[in-house]
Amino acid sequence: MNTEDIKGFFASPEQLDMADYLILDYYLECIGDIETALAHFCSEQSTAQWRRVGLDEDFRPLYAARVIHLTVEGELPELSYPVKHSETGPIHACRVTIAHPHRNFGPKLPNLLSAVCGEGAFFTPGVPVVKLLDITFPEPYLNAFDGPKFGIEGIRDILQAYDRPIFFGVVKPNIGLKPSCFAEIAYQSWLGGLDIAKDDEMLADVDWSTLEERSRELGAARMRAEKETGEPKIYLANVTDEVDRLIEQHDIAVNNGANALLINALPVGLSAVRMLAKHTKVPLIGHFPFIAAFSRLEKYGVHSRVMTKLQRLAGLDSIIMPGFGSRMMTPEEEVMDNIRECLQDFGHIRTSLPVPGGSDSALTLETVYRKVGSVDFGFVPGRGIFGHPMGPKAGAASIRQAWEAIRLGVPIEIYAQGRPELQAMIDGAATKK
Amino acid sequence: MNTEDIKGFFASPEQLDMADYLILDYYLECIGDIETALAHFCSEQSTAQWRRVGLDEDFRPLYAARVIHLTVEGELPELSYPVKHSETGPIHACRVTIAHPHRNFGPKLPNLLSAVCGEGAFFTPGVPVVKLLDITFPEPYLNAFDGPKFGIEGIRDILQAYDRPIFFGVVKPNIGLKPSCFAEIAYQSWLGGLDIAKDDEMLADVDWSTLEERSRELGAARMRAEKETGEPKIYLANVTDEVDRLIEQHDIAVNNGANALLINALPVGLSAVRMLAKHTKVPLIGHFPFIAAFSRLEKYGVHSRVMTKLQRLAGLDSIIMPGFGSRMMTPEEEVMDNIRECLQDFGHIRTSLPVPGGSDSALTLETVYRKVGSVDFGFVPGRGIFGHPMGPKAGAASIRQAWEAIRLGVPIEIYAQGRPELQAMIDGAATKK
Repeated sequence: MNTEDIKGFFASPEQLDMADYLILDYYLECIGDIETALAHFCSEQSTAQWRRVGLDEDFRPLYAARVIHLTVEGELPELSYPVKHSETGPIHACRVTIAHPHRNFGPKLPNLLSAVCGEGAFFTPGVPVVKLLDITFPEPYLNAFDGPKFGIEGIRDILQAYDRPIFFGVVKPNIGLKPSCFAEIAYQSWLGGLDIAKDDEMLADVDWSTLEERSRELGAARMRAEKETGEPKIYLANVTDEVDRLIEQHDIAVNNGANALLINALPVGLSAVRMLAKHTKVPLIGHFPFIAAFSRLEKYGVHSRVMTKLQRLAGLDSIIMPGFGSRMMTPEEEVMDNIRECLQDFGHIRTSLPVPGGSDSALTLETVYRKVGSVDFGFVPGRGIFGHPMGPKAGAASIRQAWEAIRLGVPIEIYAQGRPELQAMIDGAATKK
Repeated sequence: MNTEDIKGFFASPEQLDMADYLILDYYLECIGDIETALAHFCSEQSTAQWRRVGLDEDFRPLYAARVIHLTVEGELPELSYPVKHSETGPIHACRVTIAHPHRNFGPKLPNLLSAVCGEGAFFTPGVPVVKLLDITFPEPYLNAFDGPKFGIEGIRDILQAYDRPIFFGVVKPNIGLKPSCFAEIAYQSWLGGLDIAKDDEMLADVDWSTLEERSRELGAARMRAEKETGEPKIYLANVTDEVDRLIEQHDIAVNNGANALLINALPVGLSAVRMLAKHTKVPLIGHFPFIAAFSRLEKYGVHSRVMTKLQRLAGLDSIIMPGFGSRMMTPEEEVMDNIRECLQDFGHIRTSLPVPGGSDSALTLETVYRKVGSVDFGFVPGRGIFGHPMGPKAGAASIRQAWEAIRLGVPIEIYAQGRPELQAMIDGAATKK
């Protein structure tokens, strides 16, 4: 590209009608001339050849992605990660803001992903290291999406729980239990005070625990638990399956008494989530498999906040995400980013309940609560409830006791006196398997 | 876990009925005791708590993933990529083969992905750096999949082209042309000798070029070109869209004369590809957006060969992939791996035409052909045809001339004498924008 060519891929925001553009925030490592690399970066993700041969025309004013802001963070001695490339020259770390015209693809998730994380973004000459950090959507684009049908308020209404976190539990053993045994464990946990007993994200519709049978057993157990406790409860059934079975799986589970559905968003695809969200009669809750494969490294891939935002846009009423526990290998700032993405203003799109998870128990609740800074979160132990030495009812009770201690401002060591369920957790006697 | 616990996650292949297991090949960087880390790695991706509290039972014989082979490649001074973690101890690079019981999820792509690239694989204590390198499927699992409906032979039958590569071209300008102009360019390229004129992966159904209108224009242009040349041609329409519109988009495009369909596999989701493959009346050709975000780094994420294999399993008759050109930043060995994944034996699953692409032209054809080592590939220039200074007909002709030169064993510089289309490419006069 010559100097004139390059200019066509730069603009100031004042020159553009920003309602027509998504704003993309990238971290890039550029080799050689920075402006040339960035012009290619914009060209490759939009109109790679902006005129027909022999014609005097220019598609860039309407269709080009353009750099609207650039911060050169500094020169690097080498790429942050070794990547095969053929360019030579100095390497610069850059933060780049790009205005990308959404008329190029429209309000469709697969086409959006193709534009911002596709060949254009990842195969630009001179830009071997790329991380998509954020996407900002203008109002007209957001208006094409429905977002969550229930949101946090809808989930709270079902549970009639307004002034505290929502208590989830992943029934364990997660794999191998027959439905009647699985139901008995969930039932005990509801009696102990759990709001939502859930299928593990790896347990879906399998021969030895069909969704039909499991949801029938769990639906009935839920109603028994509601009668016994006088409190509404949720059975969260995992409907993750091939996309042409999702609607049918929804109908089976909901008819049998599941009153929220779990879906592994990236494995089925965000677009399938959006499809299910249009159809669903109950809240949809997303789980995070696959996301770490492209979001864990600081300077490469796609930031998890982008995925949280897109999951909310697709219609998830609640989003389970890697939380604060050390097992989750996620910087605290990133967890906080993801929680914020669920809760902050997002046009007309409802909030989504954030559920930062990973190796939680009664002993981690206060930390999570203090970090989140509000009661608008879900708390989701697995073995912290179902591995409790006194059983799942006691496991669930230990969580509620921990919450009571926090609510009353009493140290849990004090509050545990005379409360053997919480005491057992403090004693570290919980079997951790 | 104690020593006995750990043992339950190791086995020799002779102890297992391998028809019940997928074989997973991982590169892992383990911190601390290797066997403990690997037992956790297997436990987290299968039965994380293998017995109910207070019961003497063990779900591991049926449901545990197990290490069947381990090679410790050596001790590392630090992790290959900085990742937040809390373990301490020596770091070892390991190649690990795991037998994962497919009864845990069944022959369903979203559930398979959740198990092998999910929380289990990426959130194991002591294993912060993970790359899934390969999956091997036993016959009974493969039998649940149909794979490509057409495969290489089906595409060759449509084109009546058996003893040479298949010549694709990405119509450019890719974004911004109205359908009648787009059709005229494609028409010219077919006259010049192209087999398949295709939509760019970023051009789908948009206001200014609806799939309805574009496929009508292109379908008609294709038939004119077939009449004029006496050769069958393909218009490859991009139907990438929200998953609940894919079937309708297929029907519109095919009814209007598109005789193959492009789909961005990861952005719509592999499961949506499988759904479309069941329905399709024409070959399905996949493009690769998003894959580089988790496959480019040598030691983290998911290897692209896994994605090629899964795309073939999902039913793509042809797979466009990053090729040999330097712009594609892909090691030659990895390109060859992906080509092999399309062509090698895979139970009853048909072969898929590999299309290694990226900045190709008449000048790169021989290199690609020599590297692939057979005629079973597609060749997919964009600007190498549509940026040709004499126009798209000449651009397409230059590719066919280059192939004739190869076929006859004549150096292209010689063969170009008296063939201005090829000569223009050699002269480097092609506009590269």
